[in-house]
Amino acid sequence: MAAEDALIDVHTHVVPQDFPAYAGRHAAVPWPSMAPAQACHRHVMVSGKVYRTVSHQCWDCAVRRDDMQRRGVTRQVLSPMPELLSPWMPAEDGRTICRYLNEVIAAMVAESPAQFTGLGAVPLQDVALAIEVLDELLHRQGLAGVEIPSHVDGVALGDARLKPFFEAAASWGAAVFVHPLRPTGMERLVGPAALEQVLAFPGEIGLAGASLISSGRLAELPELRIALSHGGGSLAMLLPRLRHAWRSMAPVREALAGDPFELARRLYVDDLVYDSATLRRLLEVFGGDRVMAGTDYPFVIMDEDPAGSIDALDVDPGLRQALRAGNASRWLGLAPP
Amino acid sequence: MAAEDALIDVHTHVVPQDFPAYAGRHAAVPWPSMAPAQACHRHVMVSGKVYRTVSHQCWDCAVRRDDMQRRGVTRQVLSPMPELLSPWMPAEDGRTICRYLNEVIAAMVAESPAQFTGLGAVPLQDVALAIEVLDELLHRQGLAGVEIPSHVDGVALGDARLKPFFEAAASWGAAVFVHPLRPTGMERLVGPAALEQVLAFPGEIGLAGASLISSGRLAELPELRIALSHGGGSLAMLLPRLRHAWRSMAPVREALAGDPFELARRLYVDDLVYDSATLRRLLEVFGGDRVMAGTDYPFVIMDEDPAGSIDALDVDPGLRQALRAGNASRWLGLAPP
Repeated sequence: MAAEDALIDVHTHVVPQDFPAYAGRHAAVPWPSMAPAQACHRHVMVSGKVYRTVSHQCWDCAVRRDDMQRRGVTRQVLSPMPELLSPWMPAEDGRTICRYLNEVIAAMVAESPAQFTGLGAVPLQDVALAIEVLDELLHRQGLAGVEIPSHVDGVALGDARLKPFFEAAASWGAAVFVHPLRPTGMERLVGPAALEQVLAFPGEIGLAGASLISSGRLAELPELRIALSHGGGSLAMLLPRLRHAWRSMAPVREALAGDPFELARRLYVDDLVYDSATLRRLLEVFGGDRVMAGTDYPFVIMDEDPAGSIDALDVDPGLRQALRAGNASRWLGLAPP
Repeated sequence: MAAEDALIDVHTHVVPQDFPAYAGRHAAVPWPSMAPAQACHRHVMVSGKVYRTVSHQCWDCAVRRDDMQRRGVTRQVLSPMPELLSPWMPAEDGRTICRYLNEVIAAMVAESPAQFTGLGAVPLQDVALAIEVLDELLHRQGLAGVEIPSHVDGVALGDARLKPFFEAAASWGAAVFVHPLRPTGMERLVGPAALEQVLAFPGEIGLAGASLISSGRLAELPELRIALSHGGGSLAMLLPRLRHAWRSMAPVREALAGDPFELARRLYVDDLVYDSATLRRLLEVFGGDRVMAGTDYPFVIMDEDPAGSIDALDVDPGLRQALRAGNASRWLGLAPP
């Protein structure tokens, strides 16, 4: 394959075909299970209800490879469906579900290492356990990093309690992928349930990114390779306000280690913004070396044409190749495509 | 004055120099009062604490006129400091404070009608009372419309319970100005208290605008003249996702009356985004006939140079004049500048 044909989709999700039965010692844990549904589909059941009905694309490597070929995707980065990250579970149950997800994803990668790179899960509700599981998934299971939720059951990502986790991820060179989960702002939505993803995810991921800046975390850990999904959501729009405040408001100036635009350029973002003008703005804000293809495969809201989304920008071949695969390779610590 | 010199600042706030003592019948109402502070300043006291220390710019028309002249602003649109809208008060107390604010603002307008246009307050916690107060402020006090909070003590703007208020505002030709208040997302912030305005306001106002679209309110009321402050916050970034969902997700398609980009162009927005690239995006999204100068005078976060923010766009004279004053005149129902 020619390097210019490489296309890495950094934002694709996995749901296991099955889960082990709950074997913990707590009551009323929202442990997931799978139940039969229509052909090629299964229901993800949580607390006795259908959380989401998903297709075999979520677990079947052959189906995924077919879809990739049809869409010109040469590598998928696999990460758990975010709900499964389970930061609300008791920590030991969180460890159990995360380790199971990591086994499932590692097995998919082992089946097709040329097509798949894996991001696992860690129980961030207990930072010491999360670091243990991170060690295991990186150093024994061959995953490239982790997906983490945009907050840990209410704890903001910039909170000092999570700092040891980010230090470990930086020191071990783990790729970290931040995904919205249980977003803020739900009480402001009027309309169908799907508006959670459509309208509440962008503010949620934008504030998660902003807290990594305002807490000093990004400034402290220049080696941290962290990516925001959904194009960083509202962050590109928050940064001019944050810079204005950094220049004009003493408490903000004291809190920030420098110009927030400069700090934001340490982040990676995917290109899942559904609009060329907005995507061009991401290139201006985060830089042409920081934006990566990402689709949300295989869920309904996905970008069906990741190659076309980049081609619509009509950029030079070097930038095109960076957006298609080069930036993702660097973020993941892979050999250049 | 030549028409091209007109500059209307649609986003300026007022705090009265004093408040009447609480005379209601409820206990523990967070009724505001003013207390002495350093020269030219007073403390706004709420529930025994300093809510904010504000300067005489908040109530002194002569000081405001001097500031306007220095910055080339020919007309200020006066609206209450949002906290004073008090949607959490018992409704009768809310009516009392709103009527007092309306008297204060009407008196400022009466002192300098060539320099000031007034937006009042209504107790939206009781929609019938709010409509009564709206009638009074429009038809007896000569105000041009109202400032409303981005949610009414937790009730989203698109909620059906608020619909009669928007119907009244549309039928009477009131200008409606939406301002963030008690924003969602506060639990995601890490850093100084000022981040509330800097980082949480944009998501809050963006979701308020989105709920006016997703609820059908904008589609139903084409005559409604409603403006979002702070440039509509995240809304410009939410619209591509909402359009993608409208095209690809059946429940969203059924909920929306049409392309959300088309509906969004019924909104007005101010230009308070602190960045030329973001402001150009507002022009693309909302239209050159919908963006208006707005500064947040006299608060710390204000845009000190509203004329310069528009000049930096380097647009043609017709658009420049529209952004400086023409669009605001149309929104407010004033004669063209």
